[in-house]
Amino acid sequence: MEIIQGGVTAARGFRAASCAAGIKENQQADMALLNSEAPCEVAGVFTQNRVKAAPVLWDRAIVDGGGSARAVVVNSGTANACTGEEGRAACREEAELTAEQLGLRPEEVLVASTGVIGMPLPMDRISYGIRAMAPALRSDPAAAAGAANAILTTDTHAKEYAVRFSLGEQTVTLGGMCKGSGMIHPNMGTMLAFLTTDAAISGELLREALRADVADTYNMISVDGDTSTNDTVLVMANGMAGNARIEEKNEDYARFCEALRQVNTELAKQIAGDGEGATALLEVQVIHACAKEQARILSRSVVSSNLTKAMLYGHDANFGRVLCAMGYAGADFDPERVTLTFQSAAGQVTVFADGRPCAFDEEEATRILSEPEVTVTADLHAGSAEATAWGCDLTHGYVTINGEYRS
Amino acid sequence: MEIIQGGVTAARGFRAASCAAGIKENQQADMALLNSEAPCEVAGVFTQNRVKAAPVLWDRAIVDGGGSARAVVVNSGTANACTGEEGRAACREEAELTAEQLGLRPEEVLVASTGVIGMPLPMDRISYGIRAMAPALRSDPAAAAGAANAILTTDTHAKEYAVRFSLGEQTVTLGGMCKGSGMIHPNMGTMLAFLTTDAAISGELLREALRADVADTYNMISVDGDTSTNDTVLVMANGMAGNARIEEKNEDYARFCEALRQVNTELAKQIAGDGEGATALLEVQVIHACAKEQARILSRSVVSSNLTKAMLYGHDANFGRVLCAMGYAGADFDPERVTLTFQSAAGQVTVFADGRPCAFDEEEATRILSEPEVTVTADLHAGSAEATAWGCDLTHGYVTINGEYRS
Repeated sequence: MEIIQGGVTAARGFRAASCAAGIKENQQADMALLNSEAPCEVAGVFTQNRVKAAPVLWDRAIVDGGGSARAVVVNSGTANACTGEEGRAACREEAELTAEQLGLRPEEVLVASTGVIGMPLPMDRISYGIRAMAPALRSDPAAAAGAANAILTTDTHAKEYAVRFSLGEQTVTLGGMCKGSGMIHPNMGTMLAFLTTDAAISGELLREALRADVADTYNMISVDGDTSTNDTVLVMANGMAGNARIEEKNEDYARFCEALRQVNTELAKQIAGDGEGATALLEVQVIHACAKEQARILSRSVVSSNLTKAMLYGHDANFGRVLCAMGYAGADFDPERVTLTFQSAAGQVTVFADGRPCAFDEEEATRILSEPEVTVTADLHAGSAEATAWGCDLTHGYVTINGEYRS
Repeated sequence: MEIIQGGVTAARGFRAASCAAGIKENQQADMALLNSEAPCEVAGVFTQNRVKAAPVLWDRAIVDGGGSARAVVVNSGTANACTGEEGRAACREEAELTAEQLGLRPEEVLVASTGVIGMPLPMDRISYGIRAMAPALRSDPAAAAGAANAILTTDTHAKEYAVRFSLGEQTVTLGGMCKGSGMIHPNMGTMLAFLTTDAAISGELLREALRADVADTYNMISVDGDTSTNDTVLVMANGMAGNARIEEKNEDYARFCEALRQVNTELAKQIAGDGEGATALLEVQVIHACAKEQARILSRSVVSSNLTKAMLYGHDANFGRVLCAMGYAGADFDPERVTLTFQSAAGQVTVFADGRPCAFDEEEATRILSEPEVTVTADLHAGSAEATAWGCDLTHGYVTINGEYRS
């Protein structure tokens, strides 16, 4: 599998555009448009929050109905959540405007928003943006990077990733872009990810592959434990690679899933590492667990723990917090059998084993915890299952970003 | 019901002492001893964390075995958690030393610790402290206040509360002390509460009353979402008030439960308002819910949300975060029917109703959110159940306290 440039336009037949429509202040880019030359099979997973933003409802109806899609229009700056009937009407209008510009049916247009909750979509600006972007759609890395930039809120950098691999004699490409937590006027961590591929695959298998993958990627990251009203992951597959269409769980399906896992994992890690105020990426591996679900629950609990996150910010090997977060996670394990190890580019140190703290060099531990990527490994010595979760440190920056006024 | 002074020594027959045994630095008080003249029925609830500190295991064996108790010895500075077999032996030794000094059996002595995880109990200092405190036991408000002070870690003030009420012709007293989150060398939020009463009540009913009460008091507070390895609530009833012993769920039982609720609620609120780094107490009421459990889940989710807590710190009426936290809580409700109100000594403002944001004065909302106690009310318009949860704001102080080095 080859890592390539080009994000969402790396796959054949996909074009992107972006613009500053005036939703955000200071002429920052705030709208992106994706378009596929050919109709796409589409898969999506959406927020589990009971409070679902209007765009989530619009997209879910299309994806769950097994519909095909040709375009996605995204805005940052306002989330179109908690906006009632008016918000739902705004989604339809947005899709209709886009369809009109691109010669599509409104039901082929997916929509996504991220930003402040409880503010209506400024339809005049949305309309302006769509009209500006439609003629500007292009298929090159700069257009993809522009789109990846336009969907950001308090993210500090754009997030893209793409891979190329073979299916039979054909070269297939899968790429994506995503955004993580925060806003110019901070509100909440909305996670959006958009993947495009030219693989030919049935909609049913595409949706199954995505569902399985999300459990080990986006669902394993945590910035602040708050599940947004707008979280959305969409994958569009237009089949233009010309591979034998994947319609059963054969070797090609396995290769496609492998690529999907790699792209989703990399994008998810980019979100975690760029969490609001973050100075470091925290990776937590739980290994030798009895069951996958147990390992997932324990690793997620550690990356979600405020005390563990503050420990990382302080570069302090206060391992009791890790054990504590495992203990209240809600999965059974024997604390007396756990081995805890902290690891980074600066080295590795075992801090707890056989139910007792280990003697370790505090200065060395501090050096290890001062790197921008730190891995905590909990070996349960119980079975052969494992899981990895990603988070970030809890910093003064996080409090500043989220304690500031909206306006 | 009359609110009185005297904390844990307000009830007849209870004495307290405290000392600086050298476990903490700088000669700060770090040990407390409680003693009852008569044997006590005892009830306790303990941490649900799978990693349980040694003192929790010791006390639970006594409480679950239906044993009686005469004394509690507490230290701050080190938690005696994750200390293996050595830690369990230390608890027994501590109980034996105390029993020897007071003429009791070791099984009549409860123990509690709070502080850094993974450090052994310094038995020489513990032993010194017990010998110093035993002859100093006194039954007066100063002794109670001294004990309440000695169990603190990063708490900024001691927490006591006591009430007096009548059962038949007798006057009964119930008092308590507790501590909340933090440490001199911060580690984790350990919650300890000790209540004493001279009520005559069967052990069985005492335990039932406490179990029921904890669900609506201590279990409804959150400082940082991290459940400690040492959390302990103990109630000791020595029967010296001379009331007709409560052995069935009669009117006296109801009155006793009412007093227990009041003391536990006040102590729990004191813990929440004095959370690490906190500048304000956050009270969240969910009213007109379909079921008590639904209201509990929703209110707990809001006080636990980092984004809601940071909103309070910023005095920002960013109500979308409250709805969001309700949405991912895991309890069903109709977001379109919720009315959200922010209230404090500075006034009241409704920010969301009928599925739409309300027009409100941002400056007035900021004034309301700038008070030291703020109440958020979510009216579900669905039923007649309700629940209240308490938390605090997420501040730079929290990050500083928990990001600092242990040593």
